[in-house]
Amino acid sequence: MRTNQYYLATLREISSDTENISHQLMLRSGMIYKVGSGLYSWLPTGLRVLKKIKNIIRNEMNKIGAIETLAPIIHPAELWEKSGRYTTYGQELFKLIDRRNKKFILSPTNEELITQMIYHKIHNHKKFPIHFYQISSKFRDEIRPRFGIIRAKEFIMKDSYSFHTNQRSLEIHSSNKDIPYVGLALREDHMLDVNKAEELYLVQKPLKILNNNEIKAYFKIHVNYLGPINLKCPLIIDYYAVIMKNFISGANIDNKYFFGINWYRDIFVKYVADLRYTANQNIKNKNKDTHAYLKSIEIGHIFQLGTQYSKIASNMKKNYHECLLMGCYGIGVSRLIAAYIEQHHDSNGILWHQEITPFHVAIIPICIYKSEKVKKTSEKIYHQLCNHNVEVLFDDRLINPGIMFTDIELIGIPHILIISENNLKNATIEYKNRITGHISKIDAHHAADYVLKILKNF
Amino acid sequence: MRTNQYYLATLREISSDTENISHQLMLRSGMIYKVGSGLYSWLPTGLRVLKKIKNIIRNEMNKIGAIETLAPIIHPAELWEKSGRYTTYGQELFKLIDRRNKKFILSPTNEELITQMIYHKIHNHKKFPIHFYQISSKFRDEIRPRFGIIRAKEFIMKDSYSFHTNQRSLEIHSSNKDIPYVGLALREDHMLDVNKAEELYLVQKPLKILNNNEIKAYFKIHVNYLGPINLKCPLIIDYYAVIMKNFISGANIDNKYFFGINWYRDIFVKYVADLRYTANQNIKNKNKDTHAYLKSIEIGHIFQLGTQYSKIASNMKKNYHECLLMGCYGIGVSRLIAAYIEQHHDSNGILWHQEITPFHVAIIPICIYKSEKVKKTSEKIYHQLCNHNVEVLFDDRLINPGIMFTDIELIGIPHILIISENNLKNATIEYKNRITGHISKIDAHHAADYVLKILKNF
Repeated sequence: MRTNQYYLATLREISSDTENISHQLMLRSGMIYKVGSGLYSWLPTGLRVLKKIKNIIRNEMNKIGAIETLAPIIHPAELWEKSGRYTTYGQELFKLIDRRNKKFILSPTNEELITQMIYHKIHNHKKFPIHFYQISSKFRDEIRPRFGIIRAKEFIMKDSYSFHTNQRSLEIHSSNKDIPYVGLALREDHMLDVNKAEELYLVQKPLKILNNNEIKAYFKIHVNYLGPINLKCPLIIDYYAVIMKNFISGANIDNKYFFGINWYRDIFVKYVADLRYTANQNIKNKNKDTHAYLKSIEIGHIFQLGTQYSKIASNMKKNYHECLLMGCYGIGVSRLIAAYIEQHHDSNGILWHQEITPFHVAIIPICIYKSEKVKKTSEKIYHQLCNHNVEVLFDDRLINPGIMFTDIELIGIPHILIISENNLKNATIEYKNRITGHISKIDAHHAADYVLKILKNF
Repeated sequence: MRTNQYYLATLREISSDTENISHQLMLRSGMIYKVGSGLYSWLPTGLRVLKKIKNIIRNEMNKIGAIETLAPIIHPAELWEKSGRYTTYGQELFKLIDRRNKKFILSPTNEELITQMIYHKIHNHKKFPIHFYQISSKFRDEIRPRFGIIRAKEFIMKDSYSFHTNQRSLEIHSSNKDIPYVGLALREDHMLDVNKAEELYLVQKPLKILNNNEIKAYFKIHVNYLGPINLKCPLIIDYYAVIMKNFISGANIDNKYFFGINWYRDIFVKYVADLRYTANQNIKNKNKDTHAYLKSIEIGHIFQLGTQYSKIASNMKKNYHECLLMGCYGIGVSRLIAAYIEQHHDSNGILWHQEITPFHVAIIPICIYKSEKVKKTSEKIYHQLCNHNVEVLFDDRLINPGIMFTDIELIGIPHILIISENNLKNATIEYKNRITGHISKIDAHHAADYVLKILKNF
């Protein structure tokens, strides 16, 4: 893409009502445009990122066998009156009427609608469980829209719903595994916070801790020699345990311990969570330099809804599956982008990973309209990379190179090629890595190959 | 995709309030599910088609240099009050208020919003013309929603908007060409209907017909020898002219005619339209067997909006581009699917072309749960085709094969492979072409290659 044929829409200044860094950077880098309070347009750069995130989620959903559908945004109020949520959802529910005074709502979520569909359309030979998902715009009449797309009136969400014929199937689906037990790993000098553990979706509530005999029966090992390596159940590791190195633990072999254990190298790390008991006083007084309660952004949720919605739908239509159990699983797609930026930026702008960057490579030619050599080399590299399906932003604007640098770093394109007459005299061009900031001179004739190799190994 | 892991959702019966064939077939084939009057969910099969149509449009828009954005669905009413359309759009505009009694509308179109964005964000060094598009849900409070997704409250539309600094640029963009004149080709015994011609977007209104001197001056040829071959301007051909074969016309060479001219072979056919003058009486009385006024489905539109919206936006913010001219271009994406089905179906169901079919190939195994041989062959062909990125529906349901045939033909999958124990004895399977209805026996060992070859040449 040539900048002259694109809509970069970067801003030097933004209004002062932006409270957080992701909101500021998304406005400044031309990802979004504010239409009104809590309402944003996705500009070309933002839309490129949004599409990549959607596709990652879509691929993962398809992998676990979920089936994509697309519900309308307007729902008849009737459906929500039956579930009671027309009232109980509160003021956050957008309501409207049509020209015949029929009531509707703007969908914040789809439990009612999808359950109705299942009960109307289900065939007897349909296999359960079944899992539907969709990625679409949702609506919430926020009392105070803020933080840009993090708390907006209109946002993009992946919502999915699974249906099951029995509780066991629902639980297995919600946890993605058939798990009788789960291991919780803490440092030896730390205590488990039962309340925190019970909040985790792999952990049953109330938490039940196995006694020595039960451990012996299932794990075939005395509790003293139990450890994380080759453990016969999933393991959730505490934040303070997962940063340990070269530690000692039971070997899951009688009378043996392992020394010098390292996570990742020796043990597959899948679940990491906050499990440690910390008294509030401790944080406030004793350890205030090392501990803190921090605000976080909710980017997803899982609920086992049971028969809450299906019992209403089944009352409407007698059916053999009167007792379908339901789970729902949400991911805040647009919010995920803001959450990513909160964690990946520096003073110059955003730092994109290759999987979700709006462009893989930026080409900054210095004085392209004066130097035929710069023009020729830039065009050549641009075409070579495009031919390999690399997404390149070729900054062909007739402006000060300083503005180009500022824009490209603000947008956060991870790989930058700088092509100047001076360097071309030695047949080199400059490569800058946006994340490390490292600049190196590379062979101008093999610049495309150089970048392709980096992209492959990234 | 295996049917057991999919949501086929075909129906034997549909409610009697479906007026047209596309509505019936979309419901019966499990493409859509009716949520309420004029409100539909896209089921997996429908969504697959919808996505393909969206991608075709997206690719074509990108090819002409249009840039994709995504506006919110809720617009502040304020914007529409400024343009006057909050009132003039009439009852079809969905209106709503938020918890603070602020007024909003559900977007049926985006002229106001995109113009505001252009005026707020434009930079002086931005190149014009610029062309934005988006593919998203739109809303219209129809007085009588009907014909399924053809006239719905909520529908999917591609809307795009171009901005220009002068009228000439707008006209060129709207017509995609710099055209001083346009040729209108009719049969020698037919008359031009000026009113029809003036409706065409390539033709100026009022129509001005060149006199002999003007023709001589521009085309360098006497009017007697003017013809469609090598004509120095675009040509719109009448429906009755375009079906002519081996005809005679001026050769655009002095004193010469061409004989045996054929469209397509000898002349590039780009624009075909109804140009012929037909008196209403003629149709009703004289030629009622060959002529008719027919209902049609509007699937797109083009408007040169001029400064209608930009003058409002420029009043809001003084800017150097006070006089930006605007064009808008719409395609009814969801409606396009219904229009396609209206034209491509038979008594068994839909007839999909390869580019937009929900699946390329269906595999129907006969008694897969009884015959190990059928199972093995089916699985093998399924995997071979999947490995070549062919989208296959593998009907692994434990049901009567008759139901499978009915479902697959209803959905309209163009290529069907039938695998039975009987045929496998001779190492053959059956291939059925859904469109021609032709069935042939093919070598079971090379079935995948056979299908791949057909798909390539389709």
